[in-house]
Amino acid sequence: MTIDLRAKAGQELITQLITAPGPDAGMFLTNFPARGWMDYTALAARRPDLIMAVVTGNHDDSSAVDYTVNPATGFPWATGPRNLAVPFNHLLPAWDAITGTLAATALLAAERHRSRTGQGQRVKVALSDVAFAMVGNLGKIAEVTINRDERHKDGNYLYGAFGRDFRTKDGRRIMVVALTLRQWQSLVEATGLAEAFEALEGVLGVDLDLEGERYKARDSLGALVRHWTTDHTFAEIRELFDAHGVCWGVYQTFTELVDEDPRCSTANPMFEEVDQPGIGRYLMPGSPLDFSDVDRLPVRPAPALGEHTDEVLTDLLGLTGAELGRLHDDGIIAGPDEQP
Amino acid sequence: MTIDLRAKAGQELITQLITAPGPDAGMFLTNFPARGWMDYTALAARRPDLIMAVVTGNHDDSSAVDYTVNPATGFPWATGPRNLAVPFNHLLPAWDAITGTLAATALLAAERHRSRTGQGQRVKVALSDVAFAMVGNLGKIAEVTINRDERHKDGNYLYGAFGRDFRTKDGRRIMVVALTLRQWQSLVEATGLAEAFEALEGVLGVDLDLEGERYKARDSLGALVRHWTTDHTFAEIRELFDAHGVCWGVYQTFTELVDEDPRCSTANPMFEEVDQPGIGRYLMPGSPLDFSDVDRLPVRPAPALGEHTDEVLTDLLGLTGAELGRLHDDGIIAGPDEQP
Repeated sequence: MTIDLRAKAGQELITQLITAPGPDAGMFLTNFPARGWMDYTALAARRPDLIMAVVTGNHDDSSAVDYTVNPATGFPWATGPRNLAVPFNHLLPAWDAITGTLAATALLAAERHRSRTGQGQRVKVALSDVAFAMVGNLGKIAEVTINRDERHKDGNYLYGAFGRDFRTKDGRRIMVVALTLRQWQSLVEATGLAEAFEALEGVLGVDLDLEGERYKARDSLGALVRHWTTDHTFAEIRELFDAHGVCWGVYQTFTELVDEDPRCSTANPMFEEVDQPGIGRYLMPGSPLDFSDVDRLPVRPAPALGEHTDEVLTDLLGLTGAELGRLHDDGIIAGPDEQP
Repeated sequence: MTIDLRAKAGQELITQLITAPGPDAGMFLTNFPARGWMDYTALAARRPDLIMAVVTGNHDDSSAVDYTVNPATGFPWATGPRNLAVPFNHLLPAWDAITGTLAATALLAAERHRSRTGQGQRVKVALSDVAFAMVGNLGKIAEVTINRDERHKDGNYLYGAFGRDFRTKDGRRIMVVALTLRQWQSLVEATGLAEAFEALEGVLGVDLDLEGERYKARDSLGALVRHWTTDHTFAEIRELFDAHGVCWGVYQTFTELVDEDPRCSTANPMFEEVDQPGIGRYLMPGSPLDFSDVDRLPVRPAPALGEHTDEVLTDLLGLTGAELGRLHDDGIIAGPDEQP
């Protein structure tokens, strides 16, 4: 939809949509500043059991975006190659993704509360709260508070057990993980390196059956495994690893993911090929949630800006053709072919 | 709780908990293989309107973990410094975080369906589906399919506009972002570099008021801004940037976050100082969701393994002291002081 939010008449249309009656209406999500006409109290005057989820930057309503929150979390200083003295952002806007999903949870939780008590409410979720809660949930606050132990960059080694990336003889890169004892035994059997690992245990005085000691010995252990992976092709490694149940994965570029991974194709019921007007035909995901009692909705192209303006205002607010025409003429609303 | 899942009697206790009557019961989340006695059909025989959310590795129920899914997504090949020919994992287990949050959404959505229709169901969510859906949602599938354009490592530059990290005169690192025209104008004013930017526009033949052209000119633009940031202290930059409304953030280690950022302290209502038995007192987050009609729950320490075994079996299943004693003696259940 395209509606001019600076115009009073546009604000009134949005208010009517937000506060429309019925158990399936009266709930909405916004990352627009919830002030003035968008204030919860102002809107709830029109529908007292309104549910409004508000995504903010920080808990005090000051602004922040994923790009500015992520540097504050500590993760960029702990991401990347060991010997680099600069922080590295990950490309994935993870805080946006988690916050958006959590906001959906918030709406459903508030609707559950309303259906039982009749009470509406405002739910706030701040991007930086989501990020800092995750820092705490992952134990990083305890580590620095109790142990005064800062997590430093450690390449692709995982923490607390054994796992890192390796190159194969033919130049592919793979991730190999031995968190559990069973995963470690699988790796020992698949590589046939039992004797070498035993010798290493003697040299370093460690017991590689213990995850914490695999972590301590990760460099030496990694060097032995690398010697083996660089001596085997990707196809050989895949066969041996899969036969022994090793926990591993292959590094793919976005192109390789789309071209070669059957999980990212129409063989996966989550994906469909869809024509996106003006762009072309490509693979689009539906929801990753697969409900047994409700069929998957068909995947649809992204709507053009204003594509559904008239439809929504007619279906939900009952506006007539004449009323729509006047709003178009006044520049309050626009369709897909008009400049907003 | 500590219950032996290999014992029939332990499986029966869990089944009773899962299928207990009442509108607030009969819904659960598992990442345990949903087979045998944990199969949905077997459990739903005991409570037909059961809701069961199952987190799997891949959509075909084969196993995968965050460490093996992430390499497949394409992100590690696009993360890290430009001139490195190896992939970099981010430290954050983002796919676990998004999947867990989405599973909570799934439970609430299924409960909403049940409260309206009486129907229970199984909802599945696969870790790799969550990851690959996000690859699609972020436009990466379209980029490689339509444009055959692979995203390469680009340090901390953001894509499509201007943004990257900088060093200050006193050695702090900051992230500076100019996505919107207003953010760009704020940066121009705060740095006083209008003339230099104008000269750059002439040299490169670009219009820096356009986000796409700021992206094209990012290296030259970045060099000019770096010249300015390395000539100013962090305190000077903070004052100028905040006065002009620049979109920026500071890089912090986990220690700096906990020691210096008021958002990560008890000044933020999400956080409390909690004593964790056996570890010590440190800052713990509650939920990032702030409901106006429901008070925040107090943050509690993590329970010890088995701490609530007896309490849950008494309160929810009505087991007597004698029955609990027998289960303890038989090694089916354990409390916090027993070896599980």
